[in-house]
Amino acid sequence: MSSQVNRRIVLIARPHGNPKASDFQVVEGPIPVPGEGEVLVRNKLLSLDPFNRILMGNANSDQAPIELGNMMFGFTVGVIEHSNNTAFTVGDHVSGFLGTLGWQDYAVSDGSDIRIVDPQAVPLATYLGVLGVTGLTAWVGLSKVLNPKPGGTLVVTAAAGAVGSVAAQIGKLRGYRVVGIAGGPDKTRYLVESLGLDAAVDYKAENFAVKLAAATPEGIDTLYDNVGASLFPTLLPLINTGAQIVIGGVMSQITMTETSEGPDHLPDILRAIMYKNLTVRGFNVTEFYDLYPEFLAELTPAVAGGTVISTTHSIEGLENIPVIFPDMFTGRNPGKMVAKID
Amino acid sequence: MSSQVNRRIVLIARPHGNPKASDFQVVEGPIPVPGEGEVLVRNKLLSLDPFNRILMGNANSDQAPIELGNMMFGFTVGVIEHSNNTAFTVGDHVSGFLGTLGWQDYAVSDGSDIRIVDPQAVPLATYLGVLGVTGLTAWVGLSKVLNPKPGGTLVVTAAAGAVGSVAAQIGKLRGYRVVGIAGGPDKTRYLVESLGLDAAVDYKAENFAVKLAAATPEGIDTLYDNVGASLFPTLLPLINTGAQIVIGGVMSQITMTETSEGPDHLPDILRAIMYKNLTVRGFNVTEFYDLYPEFLAELTPAVAGGTVISTTHSIEGLENIPVIFPDMFTGRNPGKMVAKID
Repeated sequence: MSSQVNRRIVLIARPHGNPKASDFQVVEGPIPVPGEGEVLVRNKLLSLDPFNRILMGNANSDQAPIELGNMMFGFTVGVIEHSNNTAFTVGDHVSGFLGTLGWQDYAVSDGSDIRIVDPQAVPLATYLGVLGVTGLTAWVGLSKVLNPKPGGTLVVTAAAGAVGSVAAQIGKLRGYRVVGIAGGPDKTRYLVESLGLDAAVDYKAENFAVKLAAATPEGIDTLYDNVGASLFPTLLPLINTGAQIVIGGVMSQITMTETSEGPDHLPDILRAIMYKNLTVRGFNVTEFYDLYPEFLAELTPAVAGGTVISTTHSIEGLENIPVIFPDMFTGRNPGKMVAKID
Repeated sequence: MSSQVNRRIVLIARPHGNPKASDFQVVEGPIPVPGEGEVLVRNKLLSLDPFNRILMGNANSDQAPIELGNMMFGFTVGVIEHSNNTAFTVGDHVSGFLGTLGWQDYAVSDGSDIRIVDPQAVPLATYLGVLGVTGLTAWVGLSKVLNPKPGGTLVVTAAAGAVGSVAAQIGKLRGYRVVGIAGGPDKTRYLVESLGLDAAVDYKAENFAVKLAAATPEGIDTLYDNVGASLFPTLLPLINTGAQIVIGGVMSQITMTETSEGPDHLPDILRAIMYKNLTVRGFNVTEFYDLYPEFLAELTPAVAGGTVISTTHSIEGLENIPVIFPDMFTGRNPGKMVAKID
């Protein structure tokens, strides 16, 4: 269904803590017209990600927010409706992998920020999740940022989340003992029964620290962390000498608005880094976009064959994004959140 | 002067916080007798290091302390007094580089933990400082643990200290802009005037954060940290994207006995690691002992030629170690602390 107007979601207020529906406004305008060398993309799927919260401001991040009144942006999958660019044909499905296409019905692109994707190979939403920048993020963290020894124990936090669920499954593909941490019994059951992890621990349950220690009897050799400060003090005592840690996200901190109260855990992490010879790294996935073909070559067969499962959570309708996006920060839904807007 | 008894310093009490003279006792015993394949070493110089504090216990470390009543150990330089090992001749000077020879007048070794050193090339104390494990630690951190880009700003904390002063000078050799952090105007003057650093900042002075920012106008690309938690919150905002950090020591934490009060800076460091794509690493220098020849090949000419200065602070007499060792933790003396015991 293509409408005669272009709906756009703009930011009208900066949240403090969790975002609210009233921070956004849906505005209507004319469908944009592609110029020379440009294409018109009709967005079909919009990716909803933690970085969208950062764009809203007050997000405990070094990345600059967008201006109030500007459109929210993010990764999308769409279809070419008009092409003035020989690289694209009307009807081609494309993925907007730089996040520039935006939370809107229609977008114009010069082709530099979109890639053609195959709608027959896997469900389209997969190109936003396990085969999109989400999956690339998980893969880069485990393959290019860290250089983990084969075998050993990999712990993934927010393991039922978009990036975490892919990182955990890549870990299984590569032969690690994989232990996932997630919130609530539904998610931990999902991690073991659907994703095939070796163990899963509910951080909301009583005696979390004891249960995590029991699930990692030989300690933690590699940690793919998506959560940040809230779980770190519990994880640190279990980290093995020589372990490698990637900080892929700081979900527990993203809506922090106040300075954290004590005790101060900074001495603990510095001491661990020094005496346990740890490597702790962050990364910016955009610096690894040129590896996207290598990533697809490894992951596409695993996804098509069902070894790696897509964990998309879909909602319907662009107009519902403002209401549903805030759920991401309450951990209500597992997997990758995607809005179907066509 | 060789005595007829062997004096040994044993640990008789575990300190809380800074060590005290009464934690040690000097005991006398017979001179040990080397067996087959062994040598008798008369220690001439003992190295006093922060890790000796860790051996005493209650040191906020994962490394196990020694038992009460046992001898303190550390790096030494001595001379062969008797040899049943064809690799060593009476009169050879040797460095005990594994730290096993101990705080005593005489030691027996099977040769595996000592190396012959040249007393003509440089002053003997140099083999405990800039050309010893101290210097190796600085060199490994900058050469093997990190892989810093050429140029840029290197900040070294505790830059007037044993490891820091070598790290800072290696930084200058390699063409970095080097900024040292130390306590007090005497030390900062020493860093600029004697070691040739580009700038030095006194962390005890008022407006330390402002002065550090002024001394690093293009931010910090590489950080060799020896201090740990006390300076980190001031350093973090100045760290550049993609920066590399080695945690070579946690001097400010080593005598901590209580949990640190808030605010909690753990979220700050995790956020910085993630959004600034930092690499933060610790290391155990003993895993790099096989690189000692490569290290000596680079540093010996620089030390012999005076480009890299030895910063030894010597005290006299084994019997004075218990009284003077605690000074290390008050930051009273710059450079490498060495006891002359012959």
